[in-house]
Amino acid sequence: MPDPARSSVASPITRLIEAFHRLPGIGPKSAQRLAYHVLRSSEEEARSLAEALLDVKERVVLCERCQNVAEHSPCGVCSDSSRDRTVLCVVEEPLDVLAIERTDGFRGLFHVLHGVISPADGIGPEEIKIAELLARLRDSDTEVAEVIVATNPNLEGEATAMYLARLLGPLEIRVTRLARGLPAGADLEYADDLTLGRAIEFRQDVS
Amino acid sequence: MPDPARSSVASPITRLIEAFHRLPGIGPKSAQRLAYHVLRSSEEEARSLAEALLDVKERVVLCERCQNVAEHSPCGVCSDSSRDRTVLCVVEEPLDVLAIERTDGFRGLFHVLHGVISPADGIGPEEIKIAELLARLRDSDTEVAEVIVATNPNLEGEATAMYLARLLGPLEIRVTRLARGLPAGADLEYADDLTLGRAIEFRQDVS
Repeated sequence: MPDPARSSVASPITRLIEAFHRLPGIGPKSAQRLAYHVLRSSEEEARSLAEALLDVKERVVLCERCQNVAEHSPCGVCSDSSRDRTVLCVVEEPLDVLAIERTDGFRGLFHVLHGVISPADGIGPEEIKIAELLARLRDSDTEVAEVIVATNPNLEGEATAMYLARLLGPLEIRVTRLARGLPAGADLEYADDLTLGRAIEFRQDVS
Repeated sequence: MPDPARSSVASPITRLIEAFHRLPGIGPKSAQRLAYHVLRSSEEEARSLAEALLDVKERVVLCERCQNVAEHSPCGVCSDSSRDRTVLCVVEEPLDVLAIERTDGFRGLFHVLHGVISPADGIGPEEIKIAELLARLRDSDTEVAEVIVATNPNLEGEATAMYLARLLGPLEIRVTRLARGLPAGADLEYADDLTLGRAIEFRQDVS
């Protein structure tokens, strides 16, 4: 006897539901809803998503300099002559570049590690783009005078920052990291102990 | 000057983010996360989602009998000779068919309205598959003796149920609707007034 739940739904839909369900953060119910949305929406909308999916795999490359995802190598940021080449911001993921660009407060260069050192997950320094970073900084043409380590403020991010600080020590480049403290709009009363502790430890002068 | 946030991200990625963002329930952050997931995942995974999207638009049809989405017309349920042809369950959406099939408690036929009557949204009886339902029930070959109206228990669903009950009255077919009451595992104390009121009104005999 065929599974009744399967026999009542066309298999192309089942396959679409399964494909959506494989995406991170999309549960079985959301996958169903998305699939039926596609079914109801115009053929053009489905086609534009399908083409964007294929396009991204075909046309996106890693920038040979900053390792960010880009359409060309070197990428727009690396080849932008108006950017400050003396400061380099090291981030974990391409999304972090976007987040920092949105602040409009940084006009230097980037380097994307594509991960963090995480011994628990078997990810050592060789698994991420640290060798490429070192090669950039050792290049005789480099103008980089400061490396801002902008890894996430969690265990793996901190460990990676420490590792980089030690590694870059001999290069006589200033190594900094993002400020720790209270987030904008926070309520002291509800801040967690670690954040509040850091805010006290790294207290800043009122200028 | 180019928008910095745009210049730092390859345009095929921007397009993919936008395409994901157009899906219901996917905000800008989720769309970014999904796009970067696709970027990191295998080409095969991206391709399977792209093909499923195109497939669904090309190969899925509406079953000429029950109006459910299907790969063939008539669909698997309508052409399954083991199903009870005397009971017909009317639902709003194809997803509702799936939900009812999963209960394993119904072996009759379905009819999908593809919406509900909602004057506020300009959706009258002509906009949904009510004419098709009437045609099915008026067919001289029909064996349907009972129509279960399984629209959602909200304003539009109730209005549609009332409309159908009035419409089907002259056909001498029994019209029922899904039971109202407390959901399984519910806590009386936290039940809303309407649900609890219905549970008292439609109280059932202990057999």
